[in-house]
Amino acid sequence: MPRSPDELRSLVEDCLEGLELWPQLHGQAESVRYSITVGGKRVRPVICLATAEAAGAAPQVALPAGCALELVHTFSLVHDDLPPLDADEERRGQPSTWKRYGEAVGILAGDALLAEAFRLATSYETPRVARELAGATLGMIGGQYLDITGTAPDEATLHMLKTGALFSAAVGLALWVAEVPEAEQAPWRAFGDELGLLFQIVDDILDSDGYVVTHGGDGARRLADEAAERARARLSAVDADTSVLREIVDGLAVRTA
Amino acid sequence: MPRSPDELRSLVEDCLEGLELWPQLHGQAESVRYSITVGGKRVRPVICLATAEAAGAAPQVALPAGCALELVHTFSLVHDDLPPLDADEERRGQPSTWKRYGEAVGILAGDALLAEAFRLATSYETPRVARELAGATLGMIGGQYLDITGTAPDEATLHMLKTGALFSAAVGLALWVAEVPEAEQAPWRAFGDELGLLFQIVDDILDSDGYVVTHGGDGARRLADEAAERARARLSAVDADTSVLREIVDGLAVRTA
Repeated sequence: MPRSPDELRSLVEDCLEGLELWPQLHGQAESVRYSITVGGKRVRPVICLATAEAAGAAPQVALPAGCALELVHTFSLVHDDLPPLDADEERRGQPSTWKRYGEAVGILAGDALLAEAFRLATSYETPRVARELAGATLGMIGGQYLDITGTAPDEATLHMLKTGALFSAAVGLALWVAEVPEAEQAPWRAFGDELGLLFQIVDDILDSDGYVVTHGGDGARRLADEAAERARARLSAVDADTSVLREIVDGLAVRTA
Repeated sequence: MPRSPDELRSLVEDCLEGLELWPQLHGQAESVRYSITVGGKRVRPVICLATAEAAGAAPQVALPAGCALELVHTFSLVHDDLPPLDADEERRGQPSTWKRYGEAVGILAGDALLAEAFRLATSYETPRVARELAGATLGMIGGQYLDITGTAPDEATLHMLKTGALFSAAVGLALWVAEVPEAEQAPWRAFGDELGLLFQIVDDILDSDGYVVTHGGDGARRLADEAAERARARLSAVDADTSVLREIVDGLAVRTA
């Protein structure tokens, strides 16, 4: 029996909690740990572990890759919250990292999270895990630039980069971890590419912004359902037991938080 | 004949100038390129290439590693210059990145430089290049934290992290690139560990701060000469033609800029 999303999330939480940070970070480690443990749904690492297990690897083997994804996601939040960007003083009901530790340490905390992510991603014998993570991170940064400068050509491009890049990587990293040959990765990747859009539209529905503003409430709901349907169709094209990934898609489509 | 430091520097400059940034960075690429091309002595990549050649590899093979080191160094300058840290408006006679592009884009520029560095470092088949770069980056960030919070236990620890980590990595990355077996790396690494200290003391002599404040002008000069002498002694213990590395040590000891 493959592990349920909740069981996978529990593996991820334990791994993040027990993460040994680089000793030479000295006092900087405190704000890094604060940023990691302030919470989150751990969606990206759960997708990574579920994909790895569906592709034939033990989910534990994908933990460094999954945690690396979560650290890159956390890095992006820590820097986005800074005063020159979104100036958010709170994150998940707690003071944001810069609000708690000051702006200078907040900048360094994001930097350290990114470097720790690559330390984890380079723990594999293949460099492909970390190489794909680097590309996804750059796409995400490019999306953030388009967002803050208002220069995105369209909404889809913006979200494909800001949100989609890391969701696609959640699947992509797992494929390298599970040693799925490159020639057989396409159907899996087609699935991963749908996930970010689904997540983003539902996010906008919960926050009443983004797609709700441009497409109305009913329109956004329809777009979300279509994205979920495409994700399920992509999964059907994969020759493996993808029941847990399907459960994750169903959960993402109807989530209320 | 091994290539001279100036020939190696020229290889590095060409590589940095022709560097293809990740297409999905979109407009963010401009500030990244500005940060890279605003100059610098390219000391770390030159040491990396010279070490690789002394260890038996073509220096060109070490270019991705060398440029990755320079990008990590540039990332650290771009973030250090930000208002919450050193608030430097100029860097090498030009506006610093944040001063030119604004604080938000300046933060993202540093982030992108770090991610581009890992993209380059993961272009090797061995993950050891990028793995060592991640550790060095974390040490450097830890040093920066000790510096801005005034919590360094002593001057040597501070400089070993802030400056030494990347200089040691310049040698270490080259050893992985040249496929020097781990068991034979110790004498090379002992050399690399001396370089950062030498560079830092001479930097302080040129700026009349740091070691000059704590040890006086003559004291700092003596410390620099001793560090250079130790570096040369370490090189003598390496079984290879290290003439170019010796030339680099001599140059670092007497540099005036």
